[in-house]
Amino acid sequence: MTVPNSHAHRVLILGGGFGGLAAAQALRRVPVQVTLLDRRNFHLFQPLLYQVATGGLSPANIAAPLRSILRRQRNIQVLLAEATDIDVAERAVVTSVGRLTYDTLIVAVGVRHSYFGHDDWEAFAPGLKTLEDATTMRRRILQAFEAAEATDDVAVRRAWLTFVVVGAGPTGVELAGALGELAHHTLRGDFRRIDPASARIVLLEGTERVLPAYPPDLSAKAQRALARLGVEVLTGAKVTWVAPDHVCFERGGATQTLITRTVLWGAGVQASPLGRLLAERTGAELDRVGRVVVEPNLTLKGHPELLVIGDLAHCRDREGRPLPGVAPVAMQQGRYVARWIADRLAGRSTPPFAYHDRGSMATIGRGAAVADLGWVRLSGYPAWLAWLFIHLAFLIGFHNRLLVMIQWAWCYVTRNRAARLITKEGTGACAPPQEVKP
Amino acid sequence: MTVPNSHAHRVLILGGGFGGLAAAQALRRVPVQVTLLDRRNFHLFQPLLYQVATGGLSPANIAAPLRSILRRQRNIQVLLAEATDIDVAERAVVTSVGRLTYDTLIVAVGVRHSYFGHDDWEAFAPGLKTLEDATTMRRRILQAFEAAEATDDVAVRRAWLTFVVVGAGPTGVELAGALGELAHHTLRGDFRRIDPASARIVLLEGTERVLPAYPPDLSAKAQRALARLGVEVLTGAKVTWVAPDHVCFERGGATQTLITRTVLWGAGVQASPLGRLLAERTGAELDRVGRVVVEPNLTLKGHPELLVIGDLAHCRDREGRPLPGVAPVAMQQGRYVARWIADRLAGRSTPPFAYHDRGSMATIGRGAAVADLGWVRLSGYPAWLAWLFIHLAFLIGFHNRLLVMIQWAWCYVTRNRAARLITKEGTGACAPPQEVKP
Repeated sequence: MTVPNSHAHRVLILGGGFGGLAAAQALRRVPVQVTLLDRRNFHLFQPLLYQVATGGLSPANIAAPLRSILRRQRNIQVLLAEATDIDVAERAVVTSVGRLTYDTLIVAVGVRHSYFGHDDWEAFAPGLKTLEDATTMRRRILQAFEAAEATDDVAVRRAWLTFVVVGAGPTGVELAGALGELAHHTLRGDFRRIDPASARIVLLEGTERVLPAYPPDLSAKAQRALARLGVEVLTGAKVTWVAPDHVCFERGGATQTLITRTVLWGAGVQASPLGRLLAERTGAELDRVGRVVVEPNLTLKGHPELLVIGDLAHCRDREGRPLPGVAPVAMQQGRYVARWIADRLAGRSTPPFAYHDRGSMATIGRGAAVADLGWVRLSGYPAWLAWLFIHLAFLIGFHNRLLVMIQWAWCYVTRNRAARLITKEGTGACAPPQEVKP
Repeated sequence: MTVPNSHAHRVLILGGGFGGLAAAQALRRVPVQVTLLDRRNFHLFQPLLYQVATGGLSPANIAAPLRSILRRQRNIQVLLAEATDIDVAERAVVTSVGRLTYDTLIVAVGVRHSYFGHDDWEAFAPGLKTLEDATTMRRRILQAFEAAEATDDVAVRRAWLTFVVVGAGPTGVELAGALGELAHHTLRGDFRRIDPASARIVLLEGTERVLPAYPPDLSAKAQRALARLGVEVLTGAKVTWVAPDHVCFERGGATQTLITRTVLWGAGVQASPLGRLLAERTGAELDRVGRVVVEPNLTLKGHPELLVIGDLAHCRDREGRPLPGVAPVAMQQGRYVARWIADRLAGRSTPPFAYHDRGSMATIGRGAAVADLGWVRLSGYPAWLAWLFIHLAFLIGFHNRLLVMIQWAWCYVTRNRAARLITKEGTGACAPPQEVKP
């Protein structure tokens, strides 16, 4: 398809996540014609996906239509399509709606979770990257309680009431904490034959502590907060097998098995296939998980027209450590490449990208969080308040912010999670999968 | 499975819609043991489904978990399961979680839409009875605009921008009105190549006027309100064929064809298969659309332990006219059968069921509605306000009411519809289905 106003410098952005959207918005006053391409029609606030997975928020609370966000920016068009190939020599991207040519290409398509070479585990251990992942997880969690209520078999009930979360990074910790709240508070009184609070929630982490990217004292505080919510944390536990009715892990030299019907995956990332393709076409290097190694100015070597940002980019800070795959990095990179393009068009040079780390935080449930803001480390209630306001501030669109705040205030006061809907997906697995004898 | 406290009179309710839920709640102080069985874990406020279908509300705004609603009612247990057969002689229902015995059975499983014997049309013309129906419709509508934006072919674009709604009952009228709002206001400025306001919205009705169950003057007002929103109303139009890219209808003796990619079904109902089963097992009569003809006390002839309520029941008012399939009828019948059971256990007799018609209403967009409350007929803004407050009052749970009110207030002020998400279903048809040449 043709791009209108094609005499202007054409910037094509693949991906409307934190990086791609920040780049698009920062190009507002740059004399370029921007096309933002995404498979989905919305920008997703991924850090709050675990709230959808545990029924606290609705999908629409954490997603905003890309067209709405960019409505007033006249130099941009949004395209709902999937990129399937990149023709580096011809400066064109092959998409599901035709071939798009560009003068500068920004690749910001992010990552998926990795099952360490066991992609077949995904069917039994859903991950958490998309809205559909979150509603799938929500269905699995709520159905497990339903199935436990419907069975008379004590062992089967025990298996349905055992939840295993793999990986204690921010996603795994927040998920396990929210599960603890769900079991101990939200569902209290909902059932007649089971006590939801008797659910066993196990968090498996391969390294020696939860939140391994955080300072050790905050890890310890997070672990104590998890314990208060009834979450069993097993560190140094490496998952070796996942099946529909159990999970195996190695710990202290021994192999252990947990009988469970619900395994939730919060571990590992692998780069999008587009990263591998880009490396093949340009000779760029890939790191261990498939991220594209970029130059200090986020271009690919020998290709000043190809920029990679966000989770897909392997980029190092001044000390040579790779930057983490978090929203602030992607957003700063998006703004950087916009400036880099403006400078290039104006014939100016741009200093290399430098990440300003404003800290990291994770929440473990109602009123409990840990935050490392660099100049101060918070935990407990103050950290939770900081977490709340920072996340609200970054939620796209005033409307969502207000609704989410009310929904959270309501959750907080009543410990209720209103979005506890078991909705179908595809094959309509909406009734408990377990057949029980009379 | 076994029912606890099984020495009490056991009431089994099939279906947690308006009828089943009202019956369950009205049995609160009756000395019976109630089991409420539903395929879904939530009660759905069906009259607002069209708001989900057009991106105004989120699924969780109009659905509340059954367990939450009934949490404090100690004589009830909720079961997530599907009823597959009824053993009338043994007083047992066969379900996906085993066999359940009862002393009294309340069947309240409702209806689905009917395609007049053309069930194959459903794939091209989705109806609107479940949450999944609504998100499917939402995806279809939003994708149509995306596909129109992505194509360069004028005829193809025209087809994507033509929306046909079949049936001008309350569902069809409200859907067509919301589509008009979406095209003319909400999406304004969202696209660069198409003007959403140029979308053609056609409402086809088989009878001679819209809202045929309403007084003629309100029908005329509704039709004028639809015209103001750019909806073309074609009355006396009988649909004869639906295909993926066109719809045919007979009108004034001639067959006409509309080229369209989006047909939305708001016509006809057919009773659930459980109705047919119940008739076979008891000799009860079925009406033309498969509803079960009930006695004046809502039992089946010769079976005082079998009660049918809500949309599935064919019940006549004092003038012999069948009652409409609307929420107020179902709720009043639910409360009636609870009283009937209490009276029966106490050895009292109960007068036949009598429906108290408090009126009917439909909304046609922002600030426009029609209402026939019996003692007064409203239209325009006053009718819309009445509609708003009555629907809010009946929404289950304070939390949802507050959220919905804020979302509506926001919609009203900004004409924005925040829940415009194209989410996948099963096969992941999230990119525009239309391949366009470069």
